[in-house]
Amino acid sequence: MSNKIWISIDAMGGANSPNAIIEAIDKFLKTCNDVNFLLYGKKSVILPKIIDFNFSENSYKLVDSEVIISDEDKPTEAWRNGKNSSMRKSIEAIKNGEAHAAVSCGNTGALMLTSKMVLGTLDHIKRPAIAAIFPSINNNGTVILDMGANLECNESHLFHFALMGTCFAKIILKIDNPKIGILNVGEENTKGRDLELKTYKILEKSGLNFHGFVEGHDIVKGKVDVLVTDGFSGNIFLKASEGAANTFIDLMKNSINSGNLLTKMAGLLLKSKIKASFKIIDPNKNNGAMFIGLKGIVIKSHGSASVDGIYNAIDTAYKLTKNNINTKITEELDIFEKNGTGLNFVDKLKQTSAKILGIKNT
Amino acid sequence: MSNKIWISIDAMGGANSPNAIIEAIDKFLKTCNDVNFLLYGKKSVILPKIIDFNFSENSYKLVDSEVIISDEDKPTEAWRNGKNSSMRKSIEAIKNGEAHAAVSCGNTGALMLTSKMVLGTLDHIKRPAIAAIFPSINNNGTVILDMGANLECNESHLFHFALMGTCFAKIILKIDNPKIGILNVGEENTKGRDLELKTYKILEKSGLNFHGFVEGHDIVKGKVDVLVTDGFSGNIFLKASEGAANTFIDLMKNSINSGNLLTKMAGLLLKSKIKASFKIIDPNKNNGAMFIGLKGIVIKSHGSASVDGIYNAIDTAYKLTKNNINTKITEELDIFEKNGTGLNFVDKLKQTSAKILGIKNT
Repeated sequence: MSNKIWISIDAMGGANSPNAIIEAIDKFLKTCNDVNFLLYGKKSVILPKIIDFNFSENSYKLVDSEVIISDEDKPTEAWRNGKNSSMRKSIEAIKNGEAHAAVSCGNTGALMLTSKMVLGTLDHIKRPAIAAIFPSINNNGTVILDMGANLECNESHLFHFALMGTCFAKIILKIDNPKIGILNVGEENTKGRDLELKTYKILEKSGLNFHGFVEGHDIVKGKVDVLVTDGFSGNIFLKASEGAANTFIDLMKNSINSGNLLTKMAGLLLKSKIKASFKIIDPNKNNGAMFIGLKGIVIKSHGSASVDGIYNAIDTAYKLTKNNINTKITEELDIFEKNGTGLNFVDKLKQTSAKILGIKNT
Repeated sequence: MSNKIWISIDAMGGANSPNAIIEAIDKFLKTCNDVNFLLYGKKSVILPKIIDFNFSENSYKLVDSEVIISDEDKPTEAWRNGKNSSMRKSIEAIKNGEAHAAVSCGNTGALMLTSKMVLGTLDHIKRPAIAAIFPSINNNGTVILDMGANLECNESHLFHFALMGTCFAKIILKIDNPKIGILNVGEENTKGRDLELKTYKILEKSGLNFHGFVEGHDIVKGKVDVLVTDGFSGNIFLKASEGAANTFIDLMKNSINSGNLLTKMAGLLLKSKIKASFKIIDPNKNNGAMFIGLKGIVIKSHGSASVDGIYNAIDTAYKLTKNNINTKITEELDIFEKNGTGLNFVDKLKQTSAKILGIKNT
């Protein structure tokens, strides 16, 4: 590798591939001069687009890969049959030292399994998680993890999520000492399941910037910078918010479109104002979830992300590489291991909780 | 009791008590001639309001109760110190045969504990749940349970929720054969935690109208009439939706109010149109959650419900009484017990799951 940052891209993944992906790369190359791209996908489809955009010869390498993982493929199938896929090759590029980070708009489950199998997890980390930024109105957004990689977790996993989320928020949200919360059904420290109560006890003593429990309706208000929860609850939280947001947009559109000429004109008048105000919760702005806890930086973009959305996912990969997120996570973990306060404390609790909850001690 | 339906009301609970409560009762008495009310609360405060509204003498009884449970009281405190409270007395009225159903706008936790302690659970039911109607755009709403009474559940509890939710939906949503779903992170029947997978197997064989798994963003589309989930996930789902909805309303208001005269005028023009369209998701329309599974009908109204909201909560209590919901639930349960397919099957699974998950076999 040259001393430039190399980002490998699965150019065939997602609804808008490869066009939006090539356009986003072009846009990124124009704003950033220390990055190069490794593109994986069908050469016959991709090359003409690259020629259209007139990429400089040194800024990219294109590797032909005929196999494409579709959104319908099961993760295990994708792993079994995907040896020569653009997705697998883009991840292997990290392992082989050809790329610093990978970005894909493809099948989430397949990408997670492929990344785990190819890269493996960081030392001490048992469960890599999906960390994404949820929009909020009073801060720059809230890093939520896990968004769905681990449906069932124990308090030790959630402690690791808090630590990894803190490193992520420092780099991406540019906050010195991110405030951490645990998603719960109430704010009082007596509320919640065993999982929340035990995680509370660990975080309280961890020395991290722990705020306490946060309820679902307060996340969007930006009460904390990092929110930890199990992957089931994180996924339910995200999709419930999505459902409500989309319904509101639809109802608003309908009430304007079904009206008379005057209401339609009023709608037009308000459109730009509403758009500007709603920018804060534009999913493309925060696009780019990290599979955090792996030996490598893998960024998952929304499957239907726009050019700007994919640009932001690339930017996330670039910033996390530039700021050595994984070195920072490992350093933080080492401190907890050595000081014997954090992880040893966690380990004891873990053994107890494993007995009580019957959760496998992984 | 006369042959009229008696509804007992904790007239001191909630932010708008007792005024909005008295006004809602007045409205209900004007539309329904086979209902009477038993009111519990401070006589000195309530009586003048009743005189203002000129209630007919036979339509109500007012019982003086000086103790009020506040929203800040812990459930256990409310139980210990609330012997003479308006809340406790309004529930005891059911137990004593003086009322058919109770409605309260007060402290949810205190009301749940008081109701459980005073009334006890229906035969076979181990966990009463909170069943509420979530607004949806393609049907009359979706009954979701549990909304937060039981943070951790097993598949046997969820099966009971499905059965009780079906009886509730038949009466309140007026659907012959309500479609049941399980809240999950994906639609495929291989997705989810042990809890979802095991509940799937039971419901599939139950003979109930089982649709399958439903994702968070599809609930508002009205994919199912009854949605079952544990109380933790139900609560996260509800509050996430609430948070997103309120944020949208705030952003819209801000974009109109911060604009120039023209945008403000456009906002005014659209207001009634938007209001009409958003009526579908008005929380007051669906106000009135049932503590389902108890030997008695207890309806919890939002603490800040409007007169119309409280009216709807009373209407829910009235309809559930008129249609004997608890007799229907018990009959359904008996069928499953006798046929040996439903509950016996559940019991076997319950024992297995208790071992695997370490969930207490309650």
